[in-house]
Amino acid sequence: MDDSRAVAIVSGGMDSVTLAYLLASEGHYLHLLSIDYGQRHAKEIEYARLCAKRLGADFDVVDLSGVGRLLTGSALTTEEIDVPHGHYAAENMAATVVPNRNAIMLSVAYGIAVAEGAKIVAAGMHAGDHYVYPDCRPSFVRAFDAMQREAVEGFGDPSLRLHAPFIDKAKAEIVEIGASLNVPFADTWSCYEGGELHCGRCGTDVERKQAFRDAGLPDPTGYRDPDYGLEP
Amino acid sequence: MDDSRAVAIVSGGMDSVTLAYLLASEGHYLHLLSIDYGQRHAKEIEYARLCAKRLGADFDVVDLSGVGRLLTGSALTTEEIDVPHGHYAAENMAATVVPNRNAIMLSVAYGIAVAEGAKIVAAGMHAGDHYVYPDCRPSFVRAFDAMQREAVEGFGDPSLRLHAPFIDKAKAEIVEIGASLNVPFADTWSCYEGGELHCGRCGTDVERKQAFRDAGLPDPTGYRDPDYGLEP
Repeated sequence: MDDSRAVAIVSGGMDSVTLAYLLASEGHYLHLLSIDYGQRHAKEIEYARLCAKRLGADFDVVDLSGVGRLLTGSALTTEEIDVPHGHYAAENMAATVVPNRNAIMLSVAYGIAVAEGAKIVAAGMHAGDHYVYPDCRPSFVRAFDAMQREAVEGFGDPSLRLHAPFIDKAKAEIVEIGASLNVPFADTWSCYEGGELHCGRCGTDVERKQAFRDAGLPDPTGYRDPDYGLEP
Repeated sequence: MDDSRAVAIVSGGMDSVTLAYLLASEGHYLHLLSIDYGQRHAKEIEYARLCAKRLGADFDVVDLSGVGRLLTGSALTTEEIDVPHGHYAAENMAATVVPNRNAIMLSVAYGIAVAEGAKIVAAGMHAGDHYVYPDCRPSFVRAFDAMQREAVEGFGDPSLRLHAPFIDKAKAEIVEIGASLNVPFADTWSCYEGGELHCGRCGTDVERKQAFRDAGLPDPTGYRDPDYGLEP
């Protein structure tokens, strides 16, 4: 067991909630951060808060909504662009890119980690994100960690590092890990659209459904359109 | 003349205002960002706004005050710790460190630069900052630029880079550059304490006075304590 402090970015989606459960199972004392950059699916923040409550973790919402306003051009922060439907693929998912989102979120998390003497900043990027999102790739994780060693040299815990345990894992593998940790998947939120049920049609919902199917595990999620976009 | 767009972080202090005048003199189309991380000396933001107005630049205040609250332990964001007096030196200036401030501010600036297709993100770090602040050193600037190339690959202008023209310059050299560009130094703000006049006693004020003296140029600043801490 490692009882050091870990700062983790938890959106309330299944990947980051599984990350929090994994860190908790390893014995870390957790501070979960949910970032509000003015996204449409603010509903997920409530699932992040619930995750923190269940794990007995510290929890804060980092208000970056004033920044989101300036990061124009993304379907996640404006009502003027439609959320694209279908599979994760560059041609339709690029519209959901918030420019530099991970560098911004991780920089904030590092600042908090330094202030608190944490040893880990953790985030849930996975292999399925690599194609569209440059800031979810292993090369980004390495470069970011190297930058942070320079940025906070002499402050905080000298062993502080960026931990991205899912960086080479497919989403179906995250489902398997989560299931083994008894993650309450029904209390996680992926959909970019918000609403009562997951829409089942946006890229992240299709990916979510497919991950449970590929893992051969039951999907407890309520979708308005449960079959849309699934591969056999 | 380079008429490309540049996003510059301008606090309203003499270094960053000189940076803005330098970029304007080179012909860049400017977007100035002032970061409000809940610092005491919010007065400087009004000087940043005035600088933008004079240069005909776009201007935004980026509200990170919700983040500043979480970056505890700094005299700049809490009333509970006294602002240290005297020269810039590790033993008293470390208390003014906002953990990871430059990585946070620059990440936000990069996100905006990508959204706007800018070619430059500029910031006014100088040689006098190196000793205390790791995120003002040349090694940080290089690592940050390398990280950003990974983070936004395929988005924004491919030539986008971090520009820190004062990184190896002493503050007295910045005074000389500013004077040659007719920077209105009386309308810049350095003091960590706020108030009507510069206090003349905090580290940044002593450094400011010394820079004008070392440059052999008149200092138009009003100080409550004009002689405190000066070297011959």
